Amino acid sequence: MRPAWIDAIAWNADGLVPAVAQDAASGEVLMLAWMNREALALTVESGQATYWSRSRKVLWKKGETSGHVLRVLEIRIDCDADAVLLRVESTAGIACHTGRRRCFFNRLEGEGGERCWVATEPVLADPGRVRDG
Amino acid sequence: MRPAWIDAIAWNADGLVPAVAQDAASGEVLMLAWMNREALALTVESGQATYWSRSRKVLWKKGETSGHVLRVLEIRIDCDADAVLLRVESTAGIACHTGRRRCFFNRLEGEGGERCWVATEPVLADPGRVRDG
Repeated sequence: MRPAWIDAIAWNADGLVPAVAQDAASGEVLMLAWMNREALALTVESGQATYWSRSRKVLWKKGETSGHVLRVLEIRIDCDADAVLLRVESTAGIACHTGRRRCFFNRLEGEGGERCWVATEPVLADPGRVRDG
Repeated sequence: MRPAWIDAIAWNADGLVPAVAQDAASGEVLMLAWMNREALALTVESGQATYWSRSRKVLWKKGETSGHVLRVLEIRIDCDADAVLLRVESTAGIACHTGRRRCFFNRLEGEGGERCWVATEPVLADPGRVRDG
């Protein structure tokens, strides 16, 4: 099955598209991961964010083992149809495999030659137990 | 010059990283575009979002011709250091080359076989005059 709405996406050479997940309640950008056609179709059908793991080369249903599910409330694509935006409910309040609320926890701080990335978010869950991000 | 904070980023095989721009005031995710090392360095130095255009293969200072500048208030990277998040001020209130407030204006609507992408944002400026997105 190749529905037109899936064909409308400008899949890259690897058949993937970047998908940004934004918390519907707080507005926080939680994470960016990648989807192939099947991952997007499963996301739409199940209502839960499902990605393609580029490192493990498998479909990756977010929260399958950790319980840190992202419930998808809305799906958007951009003007070039080469990026996806999900409005989600982060059911456990933890979206990152490091046990943090979101993956974008490193902020650039400092000036000139002294710039560095500083972690700004606390670890809320034991990372060793967060297997699937 | 190769500062450590730039080397910390997991640049892809093409030397690029996806960069999400989020409106600092409204929380809206405005756009996703790509940066190389030089684009990120220029973004940091100038305080204005600068990208690498994959289609034109040139540095692309957002708003250079349109005036639709994104002033960068904060830069973050994610847990894997392979995605960038910019908190920005969209000075003209228009971030998309189609003349819309943001690029993510297409929402998936409908059910089952009837799903389609529907444009949800009005065009605020003549797209013909928005040269550089």
